Amino acid sequence: MYTLKLNLKARSYNIIIGSGIISALGKYLSRLNFAKDAYIITNRLIKRHYGRALTDSLANYGFNYKFKIIPDTEKSKDIKIAALVINDLAKFALKKRPFIIALGGGVVGDLSGFVASIYKRGIPYIQVPTTLLAQVDSSIGGKTAIDLSEGKNLVGAFYQPGLVLSDIALLKTLNRRQLSNGLAEAIKYGVIKDRGLFVYLEKKYKNIIKREEGALEYIVTACAKIKAGIVSLDEREEKGLRTALNFGHTIGHAIEAASGFNKYNHGEAVALGMLVASEISVKLNLIQDSLLKRIESLIGNAGLPVRILERPRKYRIFVEGILSKYYQDKKFIGSKNRFVLLSGLGRTKIVKAIPLRIIRWAIEKRF
Amino acid sequence: MYTLKLNLKARSYNIIIGSGIISALGKYLSRLNFAKDAYIITNRLIKRHYGRALTDSLANYGFNYKFKIIPDTEKSKDIKIAALVINDLAKFALKKRPFIIALGGGVVGDLSGFVASIYKRGIPYIQVPTTLLAQVDSSIGGKTAIDLSEGKNLVGAFYQPGLVLSDIALLKTLNRRQLSNGLAEAIKYGVIKDRGLFVYLEKKYKNIIKREEGALEYIVTACAKIKAGIVSLDEREEKGLRTALNFGHTIGHAIEAASGFNKYNHGEAVALGMLVASEISVKLNLIQDSLLKRIESLIGNAGLPVRILERPRKYRIFVEGILSKYYQDKKFIGSKNRFVLLSGLGRTKIVKAIPLRIIRWAIEKRF
Repeated sequence: MYTLKLNLKARSYNIIIGSGIISALGKYLSRLNFAKDAYIITNRLIKRHYGRALTDSLANYGFNYKFKIIPDTEKSKDIKIAALVINDLAKFALKKRPFIIALGGGVVGDLSGFVASIYKRGIPYIQVPTTLLAQVDSSIGGKTAIDLSEGKNLVGAFYQPGLVLSDIALLKTLNRRQLSNGLAEAIKYGVIKDRGLFVYLEKKYKNIIKREEGALEYIVTACAKIKAGIVSLDEREEKGLRTALNFGHTIGHAIEAASGFNKYNHGEAVALGMLVASEISVKLNLIQDSLLKRIESLIGNAGLPVRILERPRKYRIFVEGILSKYYQDKKFIGSKNRFVLLSGLGRTKIVKAIPLRIIRWAIEKRF
Repeated sequence: MYTLKLNLKARSYNIIIGSGIISALGKYLSRLNFAKDAYIITNRLIKRHYGRALTDSLANYGFNYKFKIIPDTEKSKDIKIAALVINDLAKFALKKRPFIIALGGGVVGDLSGFVASIYKRGIPYIQVPTTLLAQVDSSIGGKTAIDLSEGKNLVGAFYQPGLVLSDIALLKTLNRRQLSNGLAEAIKYGVIKDRGLFVYLEKKYKNIIKREEGALEYIVTACAKIKAGIVSLDEREEKGLRTALNFGHTIGHAIEAASGFNKYNHGEAVALGMLVASEISVKLNLIQDSLLKRIESLIGNAGLPVRILERPRKYRIFVEGILSKYYQDKKFIGSKNRFVLLSGLGRTKIVKAIPLRIIRWAIEKRF
């Protein structure tokens, strides 16, 4: 078990990582200064698997609770679902002072954090991530969001949880694709910030895919440390430090959007986005081709795509679709793009105003 | 003309008060570090009166703009309207980096600020308040909100504008009741914090009701100074300082809610709430009855109700309705109520756990 502190002055919080620790949640919660009424946002399958362990632990420490089930799909990150949840929460809260428990993956976490941020101008919430993606990345750092039809994560807030409890044992019920989804973000952390983690992943990817607890705990802890460090220095992505975390995400989001959010999951799209960014880094002589090959090899071993799969006849339309979505991205400042590139293994460089033809060329290289 | 700075470190901003200054908005905006695309949220009547003056000024300084018209009713502070506005804003923003101009009263200001706070995790906005209520109070301080059917202002954020431009000349189109609505908040500032303002209002209420610009500018400036001072010390209402601004509002909100939000406007309800709080202050020997009488007299002279108007047969139901709404209020911490009372003219005292029977008695005294 490992406890990590994310330092943000009055908004500091612990990230606790270990196996089977969901049964100790009541204990950890009782140390926080929350009221006694837990509003648990989750989906049906997760409730069936882990709901009882959670509520037993809450009941042991005198907490009341109510479950709110949302559909298990990215479509739940929607303003209509957010409105339904808030109305239900308001009814629950009529004579209570609730806090929210986000029990689930990135969708549950993002939506729950957003609801917590705007209800009564902010009530406490905690993250209990149940996917590898959420444990290594999205549960930490307080970026909350919902999607609009115009784009993903267009509505949201920076709002930190009071606790992140990452129970490694919950990852056993993930299927292979869900595991790879999270591995993409773990690879990202290695590539941008931690050579040791990258080498570990190169050596131990089979152990991770076999869901060996030691290997999972190692990578969740390594990623959480990096993310917590960056967030504590640049909470609101104002100083360029947090921007590095967007490595692979700019083109990744565009690929997700251009394919209608149903072909690639987040990790798969980020994997492709990282390869596009690496291609550009090679092109601009920031890294050598051999590093690109190592990244490509690890991404493939992690069960993630290394090529954009699209029929040849359609691919030009798809490239233009990616570029168009890319242009609408939040990371555009004024009319100049900012791109997170690599300057070595574990090192990034933010480059402004990369010509569109180079971005197009790099996307086409990944077909 | 008067320029006031609200100090909040990186989030500091100016409050500019004067007559006819809407025509200088473009100039003030060009000094801020905003992009060039203004998304103006307003209602039909205000657009007809002042839209042209605003857009002429914007155009002179090279700004593009788009109007978004919302219905002129408290019902616009609704999650459905917020969702519609955000979707429209997202379309406008596809190839732009917009900022928002809230041109209107409290409803427009609260909704606009909330939309600005959550779109892309926060885009810039400014307040151009067009009612006395908004100029003396709601446009300043970054409390943004929308209503739920379960209660007013239940969803929102603390999110500061980049500028508040209060053009006194815009108040000429207000009707008498709208003017009194704002006077209630001005009286509140005098009562809780500024004997000089209170005495000024006692002497000059007729000049204000005649919409004399000098008198209006005096009270808008006096109130803005007080509010800016308190907000800069206690932005998120965590230190008890900002809590004083809720004087009259706890019972006021309950009166609004219990009467279905269609009998009393905000200022009228706050006027009654201030009288209830003053009654309790007398009862607890914090102030003398003569001060209550002075406050009552000024409230009456300002065209505001001094009695709760309800048929005798219905009044017990109404009292219980107020108490029930009061109990659900945000200001309840744990299970204890916190009440802002007076300890003199210009001085407040926050009292915890006032027995419900005293609150009931005070409400009944105002029938």
